Order: sequence, then C-alpha cells, then structure tokens
Amino acid sequence: MATYPPALEALIEAFTKFPGVGRKTASRFAFHLLRAPREEVEALGKAVLRLRERVKLCRRCFNLSEGELCAICSDPRRDAGLLCVVEEVHDLVAIEATGAYRGLYHVLHGSLSPLEGIGPGEIRVKELIERVKKERPREVIVATDPDVEGEATALYLLKVLKPLGVRLTRIAQGLPAGSEIEYADPKTLSRSLEGRREL
Amino acid sequence: MATYPPALEALIEAFTKFPGVGRKTASRFAFHLLRAPREEVEALGKAVLRLRERVKLCRRCFNLSEGELCAICSDPRRDAGLLCVVEEVHDLVAIEATGAYRGLYHVLHGSLSPLEGIGPGEIRVKELIERVKKERPREVIVATDPDVEGEATALYLLKVLKPLGVRLTRIAQGLPAGSEIEYADPKTLSRSLEGRREL
Repeated sequence: MATYPPALEALIEAFTKFPGVGRKTASRFAFHLLRAPREEVEALGKAVLRLRERVKLCRRCFNLSEGELCAICSDPRRDAGLLCVVEEVHDLVAIEATGAYRGLYHVLHGSLSPLEGIGPGEIRVKELIERVKKERPREVIVATDPDVEGEATALYLLKVLKPLGVRLTRIAQGLPAGSEIEYADPKTLSRSLEGRREL
Repeated sequence: MATYPPALEALIEAFTKFPGVGRKTASRFAFHLLRAPREEVEALGKAVLRLRERVKLCRRCFNLSEGELCAICSDPRRDAGLLCVVEEVHDLVAIEATGAYRGLYHVLHGSLSPLEGIGPGEIRVKELIERVKKERPREVIVATDPDVEGEATALYLLKVLKPLGVRLTRIAQGLPAGSEIEYADPKTLSRSLEGRREL
C-alpha cells in the first residue's frame, strides 16, 4: 500500500509525538508545511533545532533562560525580598501577565505526588531551602496549584521553610472574578467562606 | 512583562502558524519539545528542514514524490490502462488504503471553483489532457469529491476528455456502508436511488 514519501512520513511521524496530536492532525501539519512559504518552514526547523541548545534553566530560580540568570533574576528593579514559589514556568508566566507582582520566583518544576512517585527529591525543593537560607527573603509566597498535589507541596514547604524563620504565605482560594455563587462548586465556595476578609 | 526566552518565543510563534493552532496549543507543543528526548527534537527539526528539498511532485501524475516519478508511477505491477483522477494527494492515499485499486492516478491539486477564482488553469487539467492523449488509457475514473466543486470539475473533465474517445467513469454516490436509510440526507438518498443496480 502506497503512503507518503519517506521525508513526509518522517515529519508526520515526528508530529504524532506532540501532545494531543494524532495521525490525522499530524498530516494536516505536514501538508501545511508543504504549502507554506519557504521562509516559514525554515524558521520552524531552525527554531526547533536551536531550542535545546539555547534555552536552559536559570541557575538561581530555575525559570527558563538563555543566559546564566533569567530576565527576572537579572532585573535590578525586582524586589528581591519577595519570593514566589510556583510549580511550573507556565505559572510564573501567568503571574507575570497580571502585572501585579514585582518580586522574584522559584520554579519547583513539579509538585509532590506520592502516587506518581514524585517526592521532594524530584522537584527543586532542596535548591529552594538553600536559597531561602542564603538570600533571606522577607516573605515566601507559596503559589502552588490549589489541587491535591499543590496543597501537599504547600504543606511540605511549610514544614521545611517555617523552621528557617521566614514569613510564609499562601495565595488565596475563593470564587473566580466574574463568576456566580449559584454555580460555584461546594469546595470553592467553602474555601471562599473560610477565607473571608473584613470589609 | 516577562515572557519566554527568545528561542522559545520563536518556536511558539512558528507553531501558531499551523492550522487550528492558537497560542496556547503552540506553547504546549514548544514545552513538549523542551522536555522531549534530544533525538526526538533533532529528528523533528531535520524532518522539517528536509521536507521541502526532498518532497516534490511526480512529473507524470503530480502525486508527492522524492524522485522524478512517484512510487505508484514507477511500479510496473500497476495497471497503466486505468487512470484515476483525484483532487488532492489525500484522496489518492485514501483510495490506496482500500487496496481495491491497482491503476494509476492523476492529482489535479484542486477543483474548479469560480467563486474562489479557481479555473482550469489553476489545477492540473492541461497536463491530464496531454497525458490522456499520449498514454491512451482504456478508462479514466473521475474521483473528484461529490460536492459542488467536485461535480463541476467532473462535468468539465467530461467536456474536455470525451472528445478524445476515452472511456470516462464517475465514482458511485449512495449510502455509506453501515449507515441507516432513516438517517440519510435527502440528496444522498436520491443519488442512491438513481444509482441503483440489478440484484
């Protein structure tokens, strides 16, 4: 049975390894590149090959970076007394997008999950402890996800960081902006009640 | 506002040009490549860069090919007296997948669509006429889609190929295998009645 030429097959095959991409979508991508302007195809090929040799982790906060220190760590206008701990780079980017935070970050690259065999040794916790000891921030904001793994991670961080005498805070849980109480799930609603503040 | 390092941004940007891929999916793809095994990433980058220099059109049937002639045209076991005309390479691949056809193909690379300004000059019709004159197949099977453009193309091919004295056939329209009459659309059902055959 005839299929596509080997060079096209190789590309389709490579695309099927992408998350959520099956054979059909992969061939759609490959055919798109067959028809796309030559410069677009070259830009993609080069960007793919350059990615791994250029993008590394910041040696201070483990954010993605092309230099030794990431753009945030090397920005002198950031408040080095504030340290926001996140699970993933995505979370850092989401927080940056709010424009509401001017401190530094620490990216754990994961969260504790005994079921998946992810303990403190698998994420950047040791580095965080060392960093808190060395940099002595006035506040560590634990911004792990409000799910089982994120909460477990937050509790673990409380246990290991509290003895260092640093102020620890946790991001608030409650109703999302623009939502309606009527449709809130019970857990969110009860957390929203627990976390109520003076008017 | 901090975003991703430039090398990662360039890759996300390149992925957003893919059909149906927005910024979110594009970053998911890029992050997948950040974590993927090095060989997988290199295979993709090389496959992208090689694609355009390797994959060309068969000079006889305009199927995709890495050589002058595609795998089908250069297979001596194929019946050269049968010529199946399709709109796109995808259609050829779908027909090949049935295993029910052993003749050759001619890929038009499009269908007639006056609304989109696609006339006979925009698709490989002239080449088909030349080929039929030269190769004198005993039958030309018109396998364009059973939609407005495909039907218009079939009628046009009838007009230009009939005078050459070649036998022209059109693929059958009717109910899909495994479907139920009750749920068939009226057009399909009436075509299925028109195309009825002796039992």
